[in-house]
Amino acid sequence: MLTNHTKFFGYDYSLEQADLAIFGAPFDSTTSNRPGTRFAPALMRLDSINLETYSPYQKIDLTEIKVADIGDLELAFGNAEKVLADIYTQTKEILVSAKIPIMLGGEHLLTLGAVRAVYEAYPDLNLIHLDAHADLREEYLGEELSHATIMRHCCNLLPPKTIHSFGVRSGLREEFEFAAENLNFHPFELDHMQDIANIVRDKPIYVTIDLDVLDPAFFPGTGTPEPGGVTFKELLDNLLYLRNLNIVGFDIVELCPPEDLTGISSAAACKVLREMLIIAGNAKNSL
Amino acid sequence: MLTNHTKFFGYDYSLEQADLAIFGAPFDSTTSNRPGTRFAPALMRLDSINLETYSPYQKIDLTEIKVADIGDLELAFGNAEKVLADIYTQTKEILVSAKIPIMLGGEHLLTLGAVRAVYEAYPDLNLIHLDAHADLREEYLGEELSHATIMRHCCNLLPPKTIHSFGVRSGLREEFEFAAENLNFHPFELDHMQDIANIVRDKPIYVTIDLDVLDPAFFPGTGTPEPGGVTFKELLDNLLYLRNLNIVGFDIVELCPPEDLTGISSAAACKVLREMLIIAGNAKNSL
Amino acid sequence: MLTNHTKFFGYDYSLEQADLAIFGAPFDSTTSNRPGTRFAPALMRLDSINLETYSPYQKIDLTEIKVADIGDLELAFGNAEKVLADIYTQTKEILVSAKIPIMLGGEHLLTLGAVRAVYEAYPDLNLIHLDAHADLREEYLGEELSHATIMRHCCNLLPPKTIHSFGVRSGLREEFEFAAENLNFHPFELDHMQDIANIVRDKPIYVTIDLDVLDPAFFPGTGTPEPGGVTFKELLDNLLYLRNLNIVGFDIVELCPPEDLTGISSAAACKVLREMLIIAGNAKNSL
Amino acid sequence: MLTNHTKFFGYDYSLEQADLAIFGAPFDSTTSNRPGTRFAPALMRLDSINLETYSPYQKIDLTEIKVADIGDLELAFGNAEKVLADIYTQTKEILVSAKIPIMLGGEHLLTLGAVRAVYEAYPDLNLIHLDAHADLREEYLGEELSHATIMRHCCNLLPPKTIHSFGVRSGLREEFEFAAENLNFHPFELDHMQDIANIVRDKPIYVTIDLDVLDPAFFPGTGTPEPGGVTFKELLDNLLYLRNLNIVGFDIVELCPPEDLTGISSAAACKVLREMLIIAGNAKNSL
Amino acid sequence: MLTNHTKFFGYDYSLEQADLAIFGAPFDSTTSNRPGTRFAPALMRLDSINLETYSPYQKIDLTEIKVADIGDLELAFGNAEKVLADIYTQTKEILVSAKIPIMLGGEHLLTLGAVRAVYEAYPDLNLIHLDAHADLREEYLGEELSHATIMRHCCNLLPPKTIHSFGVRSGLREEFEFAAENLNFHPFELDHMQDIANIVRDKPIYVTIDLDVLDPAFFPGTGTPEPGGVTFKELLDNLLYLRNLNIVGFDIVELCPPEDLTGISSAAACKVLREMLIIAGNAKNSL
Amino acid sequence: MLTNHTKFFGYDYSLEQADLAIFGAPFDSTTSNRPGTRFAPALMRLDSINLETYSPYQKIDLTEIKVADIGDLELAFGNAEKVLADIYTQTKEILVSAKIPIMLGGEHLLTLGAVRAVYEAYPDLNLIHLDAHADLREEYLGEELSHATIMRHCCNLLPPKTIHSFGVRSGLREEFEFAAENLNFHPFELDHMQDIANIVRDKPIYVTIDLDVLDPAFFPGTGTPEPGGVTFKELLDNLLYLRNLNIVGFDIVELCPPEDLTGISSAAACKVLREMLIIAGNAKNSL
Repeated sequence: MLTNHTKFFGYDYSLEQADLAIFGAPFDSTTSNRPGTRFAPALMRLDSINLETYSPYQKIDLTEIKVADIGDLELAFGNAEKVLADIYTQTKEILVSAKIPIMLGGEHLLTLGAVRAVYEAYPDLNLIHLDAHADLREEYLGEELSHATIMRHCCNLLPPKTIHSFGVRSGLREEFEFAAENLNFHPFELDHMQDIANIVRDKPIYVTIDLDVLDPAFFPGTGTPEPGGVTFKELLDNLLYLRNLNIVGFDIVELCPPEDLTGISSAAACKVLREMLIIAGNAKNSL
Repeated sequence: MLTNHTKFFGYDYSLEQADLAIFGAPFDSTTSNRPGTRFAPALMRLDSINLETYSPYQKIDLTEIKVADIGDLELAFGNAEKVLADIYTQTKEILVSAKIPIMLGGEHLLTLGAVRAVYEAYPDLNLIHLDAHADLREEYLGEELSHATIMRHCCNLLPPKTIHSFGVRSGLREEFEFAAENLNFHPFELDHMQDIANIVRDKPIYVTIDLDVLDPAFFPGTGTPEPGGVTFKELLDNLLYLRNLNIVGFDIVELCPPEDLTGISSAAACKVLREMLIIAGNAKNSL
Repeated sequence: MLTNHTKFFGYDYSLEQADLAIFGAPFDSTTSNRPGTRFAPALMRLDSINLETYSPYQKIDLTEIKVADIGDLELAFGNAEKVLADIYTQTKEILVSAKIPIMLGGEHLLTLGAVRAVYEAYPDLNLIHLDAHADLREEYLGEELSHATIMRHCCNLLPPKTIHSFGVRSGLREEFEFAAENLNFHPFELDHMQDIANIVRDKPIYVTIDLDVLDPAFFPGTGTPEPGGVTFKELLDNLLYLRNLNIVGFDIVELCPPEDLTGISSAAACKVLREMLIIAGNAKNSL
Repeated sequence: MLTNHTKFFGYDYSLEQADLAIFGAPFDSTTSNRPGTRFAPALMRLDSINLETYSPYQKIDLTEIKVADIGDLELAFGNAEKVLADIYTQTKEILVSAKIPIMLGGEHLLTLGAVRAVYEAYPDLNLIHLDAHADLREEYLGEELSHATIMRHCCNLLPPKTIHSFGVRSGLREEFEFAAENLNFHPFELDHMQDIANIVRDKPIYVTIDLDVLDPAFFPGTGTPEPGGVTFKELLDNLLYLRNLNIVGFDIVELCPPEDLTGISSAAACKVLREMLIIAGNAKNSL
Repeated sequence: MLTNHTKFFGYDYSLEQADLAIFGAPFDSTTSNRPGTRFAPALMRLDSINLETYSPYQKIDLTEIKVADIGDLELAFGNAEKVLADIYTQTKEILVSAKIPIMLGGEHLLTLGAVRAVYEAYPDLNLIHLDAHADLREEYLGEELSHATIMRHCCNLLPPKTIHSFGVRSGLREEFEFAAENLNFHPFELDHMQDIANIVRDKPIYVTIDLDVLDPAFFPGTGTPEPGGVTFKELLDNLLYLRNLNIVGFDIVELCPPEDLTGISSAAACKVLREMLIIAGNAKNSL
Repeated sequence: MLTNHTKFFGYDYSLEQADLAIFGAPFDSTTSNRPGTRFAPALMRLDSINLETYSPYQKIDLTEIKVADIGDLELAFGNAEKVLADIYTQTKEILVSAKIPIMLGGEHLLTLGAVRAVYEAYPDLNLIHLDAHADLREEYLGEELSHATIMRHCCNLLPPKTIHSFGVRSGLREEFEFAAENLNFHPFELDHMQDIANIVRDKPIYVTIDLDVLDPAFFPGTGTPEPGGVTFKELLDNLLYLRNLNIVGFDIVELCPPEDLTGISSAAACKVLREMLIIAGNAKNSL
């Protein structure tokens, strides 16, 4: 039998047939420390084939969720504004088709392009943000568009206190102070996820998962390791609180394959993707 | 002084002098993802020399336990049934000498050869199984003999509910349902180990430890990483509940050295081996 | 623009449209030393995208050659005879369509399946064989089907002296003696390639390239490193002597990606593939 | 703008201007297992630049603490006694200037040189010791000066029960017995740190942190991995109990960069350094 | 003795005291394949300390040449034009001081900034260019400023046939044709270096060495491996033909440390730097 | 069948039965750059099993040569003089039994211990020395016993011009000058090996092979990479000129396994060992 393992989890739906649409965004030009997140979508495709499609946590199989893998965007290295525009356009196109857009980074800056499109479609959008870093700088090395400024741009876009931020353990003093004032800010841990899930139950939700929220023991595949993060079980348990929310889009970013030769980071990313696909797809089905 | 670090922990007993007998089983031909467990016995021999022989957990030194390292089986790559027969024969030979057989894999399929011999010797055998994967498929890619089917073969061999399975977090829906019906099945965690140890206190016990029951943070040296596993301390603490059981054999399988360049997985495997040797050897001494 | 880099060199021809057809054969169960060649087709697909399609050596561009990438065979680990049958069937199917079959291993044993089909189609077939190892054993660890016996099987299949073997620098004394007697045997170097090319000019030719013919400095991505091999330039220069031959099929085998984290071996494999595609495709065009 | 990232955290104070003085001690000649700690100071300098200077745990920024990075000692490989003398001299020089000496190893043996100088200056010194290994042997392979004997030398130097040892999980039976008798010995965990901190509140304290007290999942960058250690969060939380103590010197030793290609161990070492600098520097400021 | 190995080869000259001035340019944002050349200057500084300062090839010691290491430029990721301006300014500043500017990349695009400044100072400048890639595209993925277009920009800047290009073995057909017409083009080998050296003997020369001109066997530390390159000896022997030329500046680019864990590529880069410093410095001395 | 691959090439002769005796010397305490040669003997034992015992170059099989693998010396880290004494004693013991001593390092300093014993037994001894480094310093970082001084010690021991040195391409100016005066010095290449072999035909010969004489492309497994060395073929071809010489001992040193994850360096070391065993053993047989 001939096969090409060229789509996530072996999915073979067209965009029309699917409820959710995944696209890869292989871009890392503003990464300031160790680059390489551009390789994440390709590696995750290969590794997703080795993951069981059944989630024993949710007792649901991926085959019950209709997902289209529509491929990777071809993004110009070194031109951040143009790249954000491409992502905005792609996300918008998926939303117009009434599908849930799912972006796999690439670096965290890319989230801005997706959020711009999703916020346009859902003016009462709330953002759930998991991350080791505040990403709230106004500029970084003189550049306004950077992985270190992405959440500041989101703050400028969305109304106050509609961003719920979890797990942050690194930033300037100014970022922590800004976060306390302008965000629903829950640093260091994911503890309050269940509470927040209850509060935003009737809102459209976009989830952005910077995988470095995990401790580097569980996720060494990052260019910016920040010891003191959450365990994989803590991440998984808290994501499950998002079941039954109205998730209108999500992204998983910052897997940096060259940093982790063992493959455990890519396996973690794929498992988070599997669970999130089931969470988002199942909620959509039951609406 | 001349030395060859060629036996586990520097042991130099013959089979006759020993109470326990270790043999290596370097075979991984049915491994479907990343192969390499064939290299585990050789690496563990080298690394065992760097581990203290004293267990501060049990306050016993390995020198108080008589172990023979009888070497590695020479196994034909690509011929699973013949390999299982070789392992059956070797295990039987050790049992006939009234020693406790200890197999170091290699892949998990090999356990079947050992269990066949041990069950023959102990008809009221109970199996304690630690693993990330259910391994309960009926066939895998058209082959019945596979690392993915090993526990199903054991189920066919032993009476119902004599297999006590811990830590499983990956499998088909069918496997989870089969397990719930036919095994003493304790997925995700090791929590019920102490209870089960009490229940099987008067039975002969074979323990099979697929090291991927550990979270890949603690055990990256695996070809099939499954995030969400137990910590090394949890594994160790729960193994200690097996003290005073009548352990008639055990195996430690699925260490895949090429996946872990840091050596922490091999160190974990050696420490599990040290503690299990003391648990099994000390219990035998006190019988 | 959306893209999936899922076909060699970005090719998008169907089998019908093409003159040459590539298939991957991800299998390494009989590998006796370090396994991992199963990962070669997937890695080469990704890396082929980074290679220019233009050959400055031949002054021809890959876009002038019509190639179909028909995907990978799904091969059962641990069942060599069945795997050879699958490869035979696939190769035959390509030949029946009057295309040139190109197999990317995987281990060298797989060549046997392809040669069986090609020889059936071309009874006056000659074989050009580049390799570090004689591969002429009658059995290996008790198994007749093994990467170490593949050329012996070919010798049994084809008439004497129709196999032209280059670069061999490792084997038993018996293999070297057998080779001298039964093959056109040119060990250590590729020096006589031009002469042989002249001799077989009017024969159908199958070329099997075990990439470990290269010195491990130029090709560290092998499980069986044999220092003392040829340089990449020597390989390339000698392959160019095969231009204008009637090449009716070829394979490139034994790239073992886990052994080479730098990617230089995969780059070498892709460049050999590019040049061979042009050599074989161009000759076919001019027939 | 031109820059050379050649000082820890970008600090640019002279010894005179500073309250604390860091020096590197790149030496690992007595390491018995895998060497390489000699490379730790250079790597930590580079990686410290990638760490935020603000501690969200203590809400203090490194810029509020005056630290001089005075460079690395040039130490003769293979001459342990001379090396200890060099470290003694350097430490003494810093103490004479009324600064807090901070040594970055290198192997743990080096601590002896520093403790000799600090004890001379503070006769009522107490030692807080975090480590996976007891390091209490009298000799190792016939040598008295070894990383395996360092704490025994400290015991011989200081009065009984002035050494408070945490986290030890490896050693000879004799070492565990000696420790129970002669040290304030808290093996396996860091649980009693807060109690001890209260007890020694009015004493001058030297802290020696062998980073292998961390579980190798969190700190794979060690030549002597000992599974079963503490998590990074546990380490961090317990170090924070040392705030307000009179810390007169500390060292961080045994980071072995070649063992950890991911950089998470170096990141852990840098974060421990940041927090300890703030703890020690802030306490000094408030005295 | 305290030391910080923070300058190339341990040099400690100020810009004023020196004849040559080195600066690092850690930038790789337009790299299309595997990024990481940003880490080259820092690694080369460390590794240069392990290289003897004496060249047995030239029988001259580096201590006879006055070199200032003025540090690294802090370059904004993701803004190529601004980065080129920074490099232009830095190079100009060195030229104005009548020193020879030496840039260590970073990616090859950076050469453009340096050449702009040098050409301004020396209108009859000739360029000697060693490279695996033609780098003569007009744009790449829609961007005009890219590592793939750098030589085209140089061609636009300098008069025809003043660029002497060696070793190119990869490019589009159009690039090879453009090169043949507009450059002194010597692809594949370095053979004609001596002839060219004679021809340009009375011209000011800028040398740009893209280290991937070396075969990846000798230089695996590249993100764009191109098998079929020259050996290290061939490179060294041909560089020696540049002795006594009037070298007014040079750069060494494209070392990508993350691709080569063995350090042999960095060692090669440092040795090329040592020989070029002696070649350029000695010629200047004798003018 | 049970087996322990614990002796070189599977040899099982006792010292009494053998003509040649191998011992390992795992010591690297004076290594100034990257340590790790201590791991070479253990790795070479494992890898020697994967090498064919037949040399197609000499048309002789290792089974025709009687070799005893007597194990590894247990050497105290950090005490060079004591270690040299242990090696002297061991070498002497082998010589007294009328066997040929073969030492596998470890670092090059160890050669001094062996040469002291061999020179005592053969006062007209000549030394053939292959190396990238002159190793002729009088002291290094204040220590007289160092890998960087070993050949100077040999010069002090043996009469002038009895040391024939090949391949050196790194050293101080003073070392090159000293070598030219006091040694038979053939730097950079191995060209004159055949001539020298003729000259010393009637002398007892000790051969010391520092494997870094190879270019790091062919031998990346070194802590001191020196680009510009010889190819593996050049090394092999020139060693074959030593056939029929009266070789009374040899060593192979400086393989540093942690530097080379691909295993090609260990394969090179094993192949050099195989050929040298045949050269030395066969010559002895024919005497």
